[in-house]
Amino acid sequence: MEFRMARKSDVKEIVRLLADDELGSKREKYEDPLPEAYYNAFTAIENQDGNQILLAIDGENVIGCMQLTFIPGLARLGMKRAQIEGVRVDKNYRGKKIGEALFREAITLSKSEGCGLVQLTTDKDRIDAHRFYDKLGFISSHEGMKLILN
Amino acid sequence: MEFRMARKSDVKEIVRLLADDELGSKREKYEDPLPEAYYNAFTAIENQDGNQILLAIDGENVIGCMQLTFIPGLARLGMKRAQIEGVRVDKNYRGKKIGEALFREAITLSKSEGCGLVQLTTDKDRIDAHRFYDKLGFISSHEGMKLILN
Repeated sequence: MEFRMARKSDVKEIVRLLADDELGSKREKYEDPLPEAYYNAFTAIENQDGNQILLAIDGENVIGCMQLTFIPGLARLGMKRAQIEGVRVDKNYRGKKIGEALFREAITLSKSEGCGLVQLTTDKDRIDAHRFYDKLGFISSHEGMKLILN
Repeated sequence: MEFRMARKSDVKEIVRLLADDELGSKREKYEDPLPEAYYNAFTAIENQDGNQILLAIDGENVIGCMQLTFIPGLARLGMKRAQIEGVRVDKNYRGKKIGEALFREAITLSKSEGCGLVQLTTDKDRIDAHRFYDKLGFISSHEGMKLILN
């Protein structure tokens, strides 16, 4: 297994992972051709400094993904933070500690970037995910609040 | 009261607000001269597309602030999200719905930017803040998890 940043040619495989999930299946459209919105979003990610999608790769296969965004801020003495979104591991590769390896890689990258913390929000229904993050050392200190815009 | 984006000359006033808070007072250093780290962080914010600090202004005074970052992503059909950090209202201006006005402005800006949701995390100890966000329509659907890096 190796890690690398996603390229535009990976978008379809990433959407496959995002959609292959209880919550994701209701939100994503993994179809052929893939909705153009995904490609446009990928271009926007590429164009924003500090924003990228980290992949776990096995041979030719994308087996894990996470969006990793470095966000400078004033709070906490001008601390930069790393934010993680859209974490997935291919269901055929579960139980092989790929999620853990992906997080270790993200943490290493975040430290190199000078980040003082890594943060994420996880749906309260994802009980297994909470245990996973607890084991990695994350503290569930905050409420994660969302306001859907219409 | 009016709103505008912060400039470098506002950094000291923003840090004053960040520090004038039960949790912030332990994390910030509001002193003269202000630690250089804050100015460096402000430059990094300015240099990242989509990242800015929104201010509420009364005359010459900075009376409220929030960091507002627009983050493109692949999840949810390539939805862009707006993330809010470091929200403060000057204690001398409490009870005047300034926080609410600041959020209304942030929501308007986020919609203009094409964001599909606004998100934030709030410390579980900030009970009053939770009520405030509830009233604005935020749903406390997620756990907000943080990993401090050393």
